[in-house]
Amino acid sequence: MLDLQELSLNIPDTAKPRVVIVGGGFGGTNLAKKLSDKYFQVVLFDRQNYHGFWPLLYQVATAGLEPDAIAEPLRKMFDEDYKDFHFRPVRVTHVDPATKMISTLVGDLSYDYLIIATGTKTNYFGNEQIKHFSFPLKRLPDALNLRSQLFQSFEQANMTKSESVRQSLLNIVIVGAGPTGVELAGSLAEMRKHVLPGDYPGMDFSRMNIYLVEGLERVLPPMSPKASRKTQENLEKLGIIIKLKTFVETYDGEVVTFKGGEQIQTRTLIWAAGVMGATIEGLPETTVEKGRYLVNEYNQIQGFADIFAIGDIALMKTEKYPKGHPGVAQPAIQQGIHLAKNLKRIQKGEVLKPFEYFDKGSLAIVGRSKAVADLPGNLHLSGFVAWVAWLFVHIYYLIGFRNKLVVLSNWIYRFFTYESGTRIIIRPFYRKEDKVAEEFMRKQAE
Amino acid sequence: MLDLQELSLNIPDTAKPRVVIVGGGFGGTNLAKKLSDKYFQVVLFDRQNYHGFWPLLYQVATAGLEPDAIAEPLRKMFDEDYKDFHFRPVRVTHVDPATKMISTLVGDLSYDYLIIATGTKTNYFGNEQIKHFSFPLKRLPDALNLRSQLFQSFEQANMTKSESVRQSLLNIVIVGAGPTGVELAGSLAEMRKHVLPGDYPGMDFSRMNIYLVEGLERVLPPMSPKASRKTQENLEKLGIIIKLKTFVETYDGEVVTFKGGEQIQTRTLIWAAGVMGATIEGLPETTVEKGRYLVNEYNQIQGFADIFAIGDIALMKTEKYPKGHPGVAQPAIQQGIHLAKNLKRIQKGEVLKPFEYFDKGSLAIVGRSKAVADLPGNLHLSGFVAWVAWLFVHIYYLIGFRNKLVVLSNWIYRFFTYESGTRIIIRPFYRKEDKVAEEFMRKQAE
Repeated sequence: MLDLQELSLNIPDTAKPRVVIVGGGFGGTNLAKKLSDKYFQVVLFDRQNYHGFWPLLYQVATAGLEPDAIAEPLRKMFDEDYKDFHFRPVRVTHVDPATKMISTLVGDLSYDYLIIATGTKTNYFGNEQIKHFSFPLKRLPDALNLRSQLFQSFEQANMTKSESVRQSLLNIVIVGAGPTGVELAGSLAEMRKHVLPGDYPGMDFSRMNIYLVEGLERVLPPMSPKASRKTQENLEKLGIIIKLKTFVETYDGEVVTFKGGEQIQTRTLIWAAGVMGATIEGLPETTVEKGRYLVNEYNQIQGFADIFAIGDIALMKTEKYPKGHPGVAQPAIQQGIHLAKNLKRIQKGEVLKPFEYFDKGSLAIVGRSKAVADLPGNLHLSGFVAWVAWLFVHIYYLIGFRNKLVVLSNWIYRFFTYESGTRIIIRPFYRKEDKVAEEFMRKQAE
Repeated sequence: MLDLQELSLNIPDTAKPRVVIVGGGFGGTNLAKKLSDKYFQVVLFDRQNYHGFWPLLYQVATAGLEPDAIAEPLRKMFDEDYKDFHFRPVRVTHVDPATKMISTLVGDLSYDYLIIATGTKTNYFGNEQIKHFSFPLKRLPDALNLRSQLFQSFEQANMTKSESVRQSLLNIVIVGAGPTGVELAGSLAEMRKHVLPGDYPGMDFSRMNIYLVEGLERVLPPMSPKASRKTQENLEKLGIIIKLKTFVETYDGEVVTFKGGEQIQTRTLIWAAGVMGATIEGLPETTVEKGRYLVNEYNQIQGFADIFAIGDIALMKTEKYPKGHPGVAQPAIQQGIHLAKNLKRIQKGEVLKPFEYFDKGSLAIVGRSKAVADLPGNLHLSGFVAWVAWLFVHIYYLIGFRNKLVVLSNWIYRFFTYESGTRIIIRPFYRKEDKVAEEFMRKQAE
């Protein structure tokens, strides 16, 4: 039987400086795309073999888009003009700055420049029970898993004799009112209004409750108060129950208990309450603050000239952004492109240029044809105009002709029909705790 | 914790005769669509919540199409004009003709007319080892599973130190040269030629072997000898190694042994060698022959006036088809539509009309732009013309505007670019035996 010992990285030796990039997100891919193989050998690591457009993940979870429409195979992105580019789908487990080596699951590799672009992962704030029972929405399998959970819950609600069980199946609790939570809530509300009554004529979906729970005092905390107000209005128009300044104490898979004691029966708790940096072992603890690597204006990790961090994992404190840049795609993209130029400058013995973030504004969608936008210069958009802006910005950034086409056709279709296309259960497994589901699936498969 | 006891079918009582349909395939859905709720209450059971266009399953396995492009939610197919239609995603476990009741995982239900349209499942001919280690290609999860397996094998082949391990990862063995096996082989050969060398510049894909193994003396046994000859020519042009009159003895996940002793090292054995009827417990054994229900010209199961079988699960022996109709979509579709009319005739006290199969011909695709077709009146097509015919027939039969659009755009795109779009690994689990994969995934997830 093949075992890990029989695998190795198989990276060809090179006379060129080797740039090792950990993470195939917006930062890592934009950096790699700009690194000419005339100057560098580029090695990219990612656990997944695809680059995803995660701002649309909630669309996959609510069956608006195919999973493949928002993801692009990394090898496809780099397959032609990148002669000395090497992708490996393995996890980087350790960094040794002294020997300039990284360790992976299948062997070690030396680097001349190391760029950490690992981004963030879901933060459960140490609550193992929540981690165990809740549904995260951070990666593609999460979205597929949640999609199955939602539609299986509706099917079960349609078949239960117990009113209380039905109610707990129809209560959806979303924790975290950031863009993910807000967009998911809006999308679920549209589904409740336009899709589900047609699918389940016998069921009363006025009993389906969508709770949006936020610890801070307003929705979309990262955006402007104006945008938050507009968004809350829109969410409430859609019938979403918003609970601000509310924290989750526990969740056992059936009942969520909030600090203060209030409880809600729900079989589906979606955890969008926070993320944390996905740091790598081996660098001094002093380089990490709040789970992010402290970097200077050149994205160099504190104390290192040849190790960089970009994107969400990098904490660059500037006058304008004392707490670092917002955790969205733009800083990662811009830092990736900027760092590519700086690495070239190092090779040419030129002085590095400091990174400056160009804020293109931020957008969030609420339901089918409403959105909010904060634009540079304190400009605010909302409603249909903002939605159209959102639509084009997102399609523009979607990677690959095919994806753009698929997504666009889906959008057009859905906009005119209210129809959400892909309500297909392809989850092959259930949470271990879900006895009924487990037994059910086992027997289905017999 | 919710358990099965708390679920029930919740089918409303009715004064109309109740038609219970088991299976949401071509037969079941076409029947249900034609049954007016003026005369009948219709209850449809299927384990999955979607109807699939399985002739294109191989496209999903080879990353040509999104899974959602070839499947349609059953509730979506029946959500508007079907007032007294009820879908339940549960398995029917037993039939009791005496009391006219069926049993399901979540309760019993009486029927006035029972239609068994359960189709077929993969037939391993009792070989548990093959069932355990091989990859079937019968349902959507199979295709996703195979897709992940293929691309994970390429990644592993790209990272192994051992030449023999690499070779076993690059040997793909397809057992069964029916349409599924042939179309899959052709599609893999196209991928080997046009996609993989770009994805894995370091790898020598002349070493990737695609074996197509068939027990009978020609490929595409169900089609005409002429089509078989043409197909074999095309397959050989594509560099596929064809082994006729060859039977698999054993497969342990690493080595396949054929009757006669020949062995091939392979990590991927695709089992497309046969199907068997998915019968339901409770009917007399005398009604079953070779795993199919013996039916008369009205699709009534031998000895019953109110129990019918249609599609692959029905064995209707006629002069023209002494062994029953071919196991393709057309007989199922035509029998479903025909039976709908007969059920109405029964209600109106009219005499039943016998079913007559109208053969529209059969098609199979080989690679990117070649196909073969047997048409009525001994007409044969092959090459590009047949491929175009194949293309339009399949798109025409694809269900739903959105799917047609997605599939069409994919086809156009792929035809002009050779690019196969969705090479994304979304398999959340591995075969238990696959130690390396298991360990690998566990560590990746850490």
